[in-house]
Amino acid sequence: MTSCSNSSPLRLGIAGLGTVGAGTIRLLRMNADLLSARAGRKLEVVAVSARDRTRDRGIDVSTLRWHENPLDLVSDPDVDVVVELIGGSEGPARALVEKALSAGKPVVTANKALLAVHGSALAKLSADNHAPLLFEAAVAGGIPAIKTVREGLAADKLLHVGGILNGTCNYILTVMRETGKDFDLVLKDAQDLGYAEADPSTDIDGIDAAHKLTILAGLAFGRPVAFDSVQVEGIRQIGAIDFAFARTLGYRIKLLGLARLTDAGLQARVAPCLLPHNAPIAQVDGVFNAVVAEGEFVGRIMLEGRGAGAGPTACAVTADLVDIARGHTIPVWGVQASAEPALRACPAGTGAGAFYLRLMVEDRPGVIADITAVLRDCGVSLRSMLQHPAENETTPYVPLVLVTHQTSEAAMQDAITKIDALSVVTDSPVMIRIETA
Amino acid sequence: MTSCSNSSPLRLGIAGLGTVGAGTIRLLRMNADLLSARAGRKLEVVAVSARDRTRDRGIDVSTLRWHENPLDLVSDPDVDVVVELIGGSEGPARALVEKALSAGKPVVTANKALLAVHGSALAKLSADNHAPLLFEAAVAGGIPAIKTVREGLAADKLLHVGGILNGTCNYILTVMRETGKDFDLVLKDAQDLGYAEADPSTDIDGIDAAHKLTILAGLAFGRPVAFDSVQVEGIRQIGAIDFAFARTLGYRIKLLGLARLTDAGLQARVAPCLLPHNAPIAQVDGVFNAVVAEGEFVGRIMLEGRGAGAGPTACAVTADLVDIARGHTIPVWGVQASAEPALRACPAGTGAGAFYLRLMVEDRPGVIADITAVLRDCGVSLRSMLQHPAENETTPYVPLVLVTHQTSEAAMQDAITKIDALSVVTDSPVMIRIETA
Repeated sequence: MTSCSNSSPLRLGIAGLGTVGAGTIRLLRMNADLLSARAGRKLEVVAVSARDRTRDRGIDVSTLRWHENPLDLVSDPDVDVVVELIGGSEGPARALVEKALSAGKPVVTANKALLAVHGSALAKLSADNHAPLLFEAAVAGGIPAIKTVREGLAADKLLHVGGILNGTCNYILTVMRETGKDFDLVLKDAQDLGYAEADPSTDIDGIDAAHKLTILAGLAFGRPVAFDSVQVEGIRQIGAIDFAFARTLGYRIKLLGLARLTDAGLQARVAPCLLPHNAPIAQVDGVFNAVVAEGEFVGRIMLEGRGAGAGPTACAVTADLVDIARGHTIPVWGVQASAEPALRACPAGTGAGAFYLRLMVEDRPGVIADITAVLRDCGVSLRSMLQHPAENETTPYVPLVLVTHQTSEAAMQDAITKIDALSVVTDSPVMIRIETA
Repeated sequence: MTSCSNSSPLRLGIAGLGTVGAGTIRLLRMNADLLSARAGRKLEVVAVSARDRTRDRGIDVSTLRWHENPLDLVSDPDVDVVVELIGGSEGPARALVEKALSAGKPVVTANKALLAVHGSALAKLSADNHAPLLFEAAVAGGIPAIKTVREGLAADKLLHVGGILNGTCNYILTVMRETGKDFDLVLKDAQDLGYAEADPSTDIDGIDAAHKLTILAGLAFGRPVAFDSVQVEGIRQIGAIDFAFARTLGYRIKLLGLARLTDAGLQARVAPCLLPHNAPIAQVDGVFNAVVAEGEFVGRIMLEGRGAGAGPTACAVTADLVDIARGHTIPVWGVQASAEPALRACPAGTGAGAFYLRLMVEDRPGVIADITAVLRDCGVSLRSMLQHPAENETTPYVPLVLVTHQTSEAAMQDAITKIDALSVVTDSPVMIRIETA
């Protein structure tokens, strides 16, 4: 690790000048005095690297050394800390972080995919080279979720961690609830407003939330978690009709990431959930994120704030830089990296829960008897059933909602497969887990 | 500062073995392995001091060195860190912390009164002797509020900070809202349940919340704040009738501490407030605390959790110990202590706001005209007025509620003084500030 005396500036090399990179430079300039006072030394950007030198980013970068190749930031002797804001789990972002850590240079990154996918190897690289790797901006934007889990709750044994980790999904689900509109329409509006990407799949299919959950779980349980073992489900299948049923039942629908250590092992899942409408996390709407953690001693903690955007993300990146300037460094997963491989979450179908099941069924006598017989045969016990009359005379199908008692996932999957095969059922059944948190 | 090699245990001397002290020892024992892994070394209690050696605290302290005088923990050469859990802004707690810092020994404390009242002098003592002073447990129990403001949000200029900082008051106000019972009755129940002290004044008169707000404001604005300049109002005057009116108007009543840096200076106040019933902080009920902060870049952050109790408080104390073991230390107010005196908040009457004013007035024609004339003459503009019919035939008085537009505090105080002097008004007027946050 590069050593600097406390009075010399901490010299930064920033790779990636998109929204977050430009926002970070703007913040470093606007808050320069405040940052010097808090960090005990100046934070000074000396070099940058991005794809297009001529693009107008709303900030003047003409006085900064420009590297065409981001990897050259590592060999630049004037750069004390490499700030990686390129993104992506592979390619130049990964190469840059690996090269910097190998060279013993501290790295600050906002890259959730990189940490989720390569967190185990990067922790080892960081430890072997005494080069800190900080990534507060990778989870929940401006909410200091990583610091809270890794330091604030360091004294407690955590039982679960997670939350509303994707602002795009939360925005879409909130608007669907408020307007009664269908998914496709609301997604289109979100894209027009800049809340969803042109290719929205990373967000709406739950991948982004799963990256963040993988990181939170690794911090909470002190060991990297294998990203490919996390169960991931997105929100495409949720219809306007599900919000109507959820309201009737007293629930809200949220995309939750939750990781729990159970006797059977780690349960880690991103999926849409029904939550009691008055649960604190059910109140977190729009683009806001919420992170929850529960510990044996501390009980339940919830943090809420903006999960994305240039300002909040720049704040998180710069808070990491202040920590480095203060000499506060910490192993990647909060404990010294061990030789153990990443922790794998239990496979799907091994847990239990209560479920909401929405079917489109033929509107004729005997159908409900057929379906409830399947559930009985699979050992799934029903708590309630709701049916809405057909809204549309042109279709012979009506929505039917079944709410189960606590049951095993395996039994539920078995039942769904059998129900899906019934001739009276059209469309794929929509299953949503019911959470109490 | 005592220097310890990273492989040697961090040896603790704990003063005060009440709920929190005993809870901390229990946590240190139960989570010993986890703490060693996270801190990079063992945390080991070697000595304690408390008033009564024979009391059963549910933990075995017979193997620990016992000091009759807590000050002897400082001179005990086996003690690396002094943990002060005696409490109170003066007496043995203050003497112990001052002696430890003067001797260069790190101190961890849960003592909000001490930090609020002597924070300026203690910061100097800590800096002069290179002895860290950490106090995460002093504010909002298990919520890592101090770490969030001082480190997590270190990159941003904070605009305001505060929240629901006293669980006893929040519990009482929540039960009053839910049951419609009056203050005295609910306080009595809270005392029976152990949620309020036999002498509840520190809590219900707002002193405890003001201690915590003083600390949060000092951290947010990078300079200790003079406790005696903070405006403090408690909840004794709030009646069941106010909850009825608040509900009608779409508000909830919470005791909020809020500190804002304005062009006129620091506004810092603990007072009951009306909040829109759907505001996130208005949803925080019972003994839970919430801390809010708003920064220029990060926007609004809210943290919610248990603000008191042995478990959460022990977690916060121990997280500070882990920080010390990791070598993470930071100046008391987040920046190097300067020679400047503590920042004083603006005096009462210098701010502005919208207000709820509840009067008990004679139930006869002309009364409302008299009162609204006073408001007009004082330049206070009304937004709405509500009157409930007399519930009780035996009294000639009825409650009258006036809600103002934004107005100066000075005008409001002037109007209240004049209204209070009207012969048609009985009881003291109850004024509650309306907040949007």
